[in-house]
Amino acid sequence: MKNSKVTSRRHILRMGAAAVGGGLLGQQKIQAIETPGRLGAPLGPYGERSPYEKAVRWTRQSRTPETGSSFTPLQDSVGTLTPSSLHYERHHSGIPMIDPERHRLVIHGMVDRPLSLSVADIRRHPSLSRIMVMECGGNSGSEWAASTGPDVQRSFGLVSCSEWTGVRLSLLLKEVGVQPGASWVIAEGADACRMMRSVPLAKAMDDALIAYGQNGEALRPAQGYPLRLLLPGWEGNTNVKWLHSLKLIDQPYMARDETAKYSDLMPDGKARIFTYRMEAKSVITFPSGGQTLPGPGLYEMTGLAWSGSGRIDRVEITTDGGKSWVNALLQEPRLPVAFTRFRLPWRFDSREAVIASRATDETGYVQPSREALIAVRGTNSGYHFNGMKFWKVHANGTVTNVEV
Amino acid sequence: MKNSKVTSRRHILRMGAAAVGGGLLGQQKIQAIETPGRLGAPLGPYGERSPYEKAVRWTRQSRTPETGSSFTPLQDSVGTLTPSSLHYERHHSGIPMIDPERHRLVIHGMVDRPLSLSVADIRRHPSLSRIMVMECGGNSGSEWAASTGPDVQRSFGLVSCSEWTGVRLSLLLKEVGVQPGASWVIAEGADACRMMRSVPLAKAMDDALIAYGQNGEALRPAQGYPLRLLLPGWEGNTNVKWLHSLKLIDQPYMARDETAKYSDLMPDGKARIFTYRMEAKSVITFPSGGQTLPGPGLYEMTGLAWSGSGRIDRVEITTDGGKSWVNALLQEPRLPVAFTRFRLPWRFDSREAVIASRATDETGYVQPSREALIAVRGTNSGYHFNGMKFWKVHANGTVTNVEV
Repeated sequence: MKNSKVTSRRHILRMGAAAVGGGLLGQQKIQAIETPGRLGAPLGPYGERSPYEKAVRWTRQSRTPETGSSFTPLQDSVGTLTPSSLHYERHHSGIPMIDPERHRLVIHGMVDRPLSLSVADIRRHPSLSRIMVMECGGNSGSEWAASTGPDVQRSFGLVSCSEWTGVRLSLLLKEVGVQPGASWVIAEGADACRMMRSVPLAKAMDDALIAYGQNGEALRPAQGYPLRLLLPGWEGNTNVKWLHSLKLIDQPYMARDETAKYSDLMPDGKARIFTYRMEAKSVITFPSGGQTLPGPGLYEMTGLAWSGSGRIDRVEITTDGGKSWVNALLQEPRLPVAFTRFRLPWRFDSREAVIASRATDETGYVQPSREALIAVRGTNSGYHFNGMKFWKVHANGTVTNVEV
Repeated sequence: MKNSKVTSRRHILRMGAAAVGGGLLGQQKIQAIETPGRLGAPLGPYGERSPYEKAVRWTRQSRTPETGSSFTPLQDSVGTLTPSSLHYERHHSGIPMIDPERHRLVIHGMVDRPLSLSVADIRRHPSLSRIMVMECGGNSGSEWAASTGPDVQRSFGLVSCSEWTGVRLSLLLKEVGVQPGASWVIAEGADACRMMRSVPLAKAMDDALIAYGQNGEALRPAQGYPLRLLLPGWEGNTNVKWLHSLKLIDQPYMARDETAKYSDLMPDGKARIFTYRMEAKSVITFPSGGQTLPGPGLYEMTGLAWSGSGRIDRVEITTDGGKSWVNALLQEPRLPVAFTRFRLPWRFDSREAVIASRATDETGYVQPSREALIAVRGTNSGYHFNGMKFWKVHANGTVTNVEV
């Protein structure tokens, strides 16, 4: 842990400079500077990305287009934020089109003074912003299977990171006056299926937010516009989108999405329920399955690490299938429950390499191997996979999962 | 300074809760939860914002649509980041459409080994990410005039904040081998006007970046796709977009944009040139000119502060035209040369209030009043205005500049 923190960036950069200087770049020819010759596009009110940029979410086939998941293209990610347009999605009955002027959040049940709040009401309250990861409880479900996912988007892409802005739920709960005996909050969305989850009152009073902002603007419709419950570090499904009702009661609802779904069936036939927290996890995004290295030489190996329990303290990388590990450089600031970008200069010498990353968070929790995870939990559950992901870099530069 | 840092968030939230509980929200009626009744929109590859969200950049009229400025709608901002689609723009000959496969960055002049680098070459180097503000040297030019800007977008909107990802320029300069005697780097863009600026070698070797990423994806075309020079804390114009040439020489070029433009004409008729650094500045974004408070009661007053010299250490707010000041709450983490969001619960009692913010950065520099700034610099220059901005909240809730 210490090593990772004290690794001097200057030292890494010198390594990089030395290695690159003698390799790739030394062979470059000087090319003429092209003359553009004509004026470019005019100024505009709302910008778009370059038409040369093609990264899109991948949508898993489902029986109805309104239900399913779409996956963030992590292989194209840079830095620590996810563009809102590429944030992963998981919908149970499509994206409702909500007029923020008409939307209300009702807080009711075992409270002294039930309230109905407009978005404007909520925005008058003291707010805060935090950069925070959101991960679907079912992310990496593919990895429980004997043949793991072929690329990082399909195997790890149900996770994204945004700056969220909103109001502490504890503040609103003080206003309504929670009655003695209340111990759960039932959060319900305004989508057609009324997706709902039971949240322990302790979490609601701790760090839960009612978010209205994402990445400097209003929440995107697919992320719950105009209001979303945010439960830092907890599986995405509990972060109820299009939030319109919070009911205080003295027991959980045992709703569909916490019993039939989003529960973990163990090898002994019993199911773990209310397994809210997402544990430490990491994955190499470059090089990763489906990519091809154009030739030998120095590259920057990079990826993302995160933990529902706080900050990432260390990421180790192996290039020999797990026999030896070295610490990656971690991008600062390392924020709790946020993406931490890790990087390591790496020389590819056109020999097969089996690579993976392993994260340790500030609680000391170490990301397990896939085998260790399965040894404990079996393979009945599609949820909460946080095992290591190995990629095989073939001698010809192609990258696949290790089954190829 | 100490006060601002130690102000307990819990304390502020309690203040807010107490004040709101007795006012606005106590009068709310409980409203029925509307039934959505039908499935929402399906999953998609690349998301958009809600059609209910209308914030756009405002473009200042110019004689040709390819030249001019477009301003970020700061009045609608939340948190500390600017959506890439709303990042301010300042173009001198439009936005070139560049194929990243064909683009090259040539580093030449007084170097031992000139290089021509593709975007792919650059992306193989050790990289880093940083959240950083970009501000046009001409931002707030309106404020030098006797009648100051009517709203925060038009008066302060040539500033935005993104997470940028790229490679240290110092690393590339080590590869080319800077020759003795070289002391300046001439950075040139691939736009039709070949916009160029002279950059002291010391800055290039210090913290300059060659950026290819913005907010988790590639740079937007309007921000220099595929490569931009980033000079942390320096006026936007020096952060050359569509960067295609870096030439090492022993003197500055005295280019058009550092002599006829982007220089500061002083009262004595002499001009300051190479005034690169943007000094500490802040502005209240809510309530701000053009907005209307719907009635008396508690609001969250909020705004943005930043400094080209490092972190923001304190933001003070006045609501009585500058007679008294209180410390605002600062959003953490406070990053150097990045937006710091400040907030303060504020009760509007339907009496006229004249409000402003004043930032202090970690060097101890205090944002000056408009009058103090003009006393030193006069009003011949349109650049580098960083004075305080006062808004008048009228008894009826409308907000204007102080001249109204």
